[in-house]
Amino acid sequence: MSEVLKSLWCTIEDRQRNPPPGSYTAKLFAAGLPRIAQKVGEEGVETVVAGLSQGDDRVISEMADLVYHCMVLLAARSLNWDAVEDELARRFK
Amino acid sequence: MSEVLKSLWCTIEDRQRNPPPGSYTAKLFAAGLPRIAQKVGEEGVETVVAGLSQGDDRVISEMADLVYHCMVLLAARSLNWDAVEDELARRFK
Amino acid sequence: MSEVLKSLWCTIEDRQRNPPPGSYTAKLFAAGLPRIAQKVGEEGVETVVAGLSQGDDRVISEMADLVYHCMVLLAARSLNWDAVEDELARRFK
Amino acid sequence: MSEVLKSLWCTIEDRQRNPPPGSYTAKLFAAGLPRIAQKVGEEGVETVVAGLSQGDDRVISEMADLVYHCMVLLAARSLNWDAVEDELARRFK
Repeated sequence: MSEVLKSLWCTIEDRQRNPPPGSYTAKLFAAGLPRIAQKVGEEGVETVVAGLSQGDDRVISEMADLVYHCMVLLAARSLNWDAVEDELARRFK
Repeated sequence: MSEVLKSLWCTIEDRQRNPPPGSYTAKLFAAGLPRIAQKVGEEGVETVVAGLSQGDDRVISEMADLVYHCMVLLAARSLNWDAVEDELARRFK
Repeated sequence: MSEVLKSLWCTIEDRQRNPPPGSYTAKLFAAGLPRIAQKVGEEGVETVVAGLSQGDDRVISEMADLVYHCMVLLAARSLNWDAVEDELARRFK
Repeated sequence: MSEVLKSLWCTIEDRQRNPPPGSYTAKLFAAGLPRIAQKVGEEGVETVVAGLSQGDDRVISEMADLVYHCMVLLAARSLNWDAVEDELARRFK
């Protein structure tokens, strides 16, 4: 995992274990798996729309949202991002 | 970018520049942006379904598919994964 | 088309031609095709999530949202719902 | 419900009760709710992509697919299309 993704992952796990009041991530975990999965799907759709009809900044911004919400989904399922990278390594090496 | 993602990214860019016959990635680039965006959306949906109703292996596998197709979308738009990580760093640091 | 869908379709077309201030439908048309398409995708995702993990009322409510936004997309593309029913008739008869 | 949608709905319910060998609809019911929900999400994505970047025929075709798979989802949840139209009538009248 890169430093950036590692740092993001640690922040997400920390919000899950020690939910600070007002944190968006903590609210997502409190809302539960259906809400988190819905956000992953919505960010996927927004990435599709940006990819087809919007500017570069929007594509990058929506994809960053997608990666973040994917990490929240992983944490909610007690999984981790390393497993995703391991799967990619397994397939492409 | 981690070694794994860097290696995946380089492979994708190589398939784009030097499309080998029979390569799935090369076929995606040839099919064009609407087809690539559609795959991103479909993998997003499959991640949602796996997250809500399937086993851990399936969640990891669908999310790996999603990351791969996101990278193909970035390359098709002449963007790169570093920009996504930079955006995440900007937001979460 | 049933009376209900016909009535909904006429309302949507009227909002498109004579946009009343404050109308949600008029705002969607003003926002443009990418925003309308995004809403179709998001309601599709919400239907998936409801179908897998929520109660009957939620499934019905999300699917009603999906049908409504599909009609807005059709109108924005200068198409109409009859064409969708004709296509279904062609396939299933 | 229009004659077309009524006829489609009856066919879907019949395939659910008396699954004929080789029927796509019967296979969907046999595959189960996650697979059916996934198809709804995928057809939603294809409708988005068609709406933004493809021809009129493709928009109509993808939306017909979406309506069909929505009906299969309703039947799999023991719900029916009338409830969707009732909800639309309740909101828009």
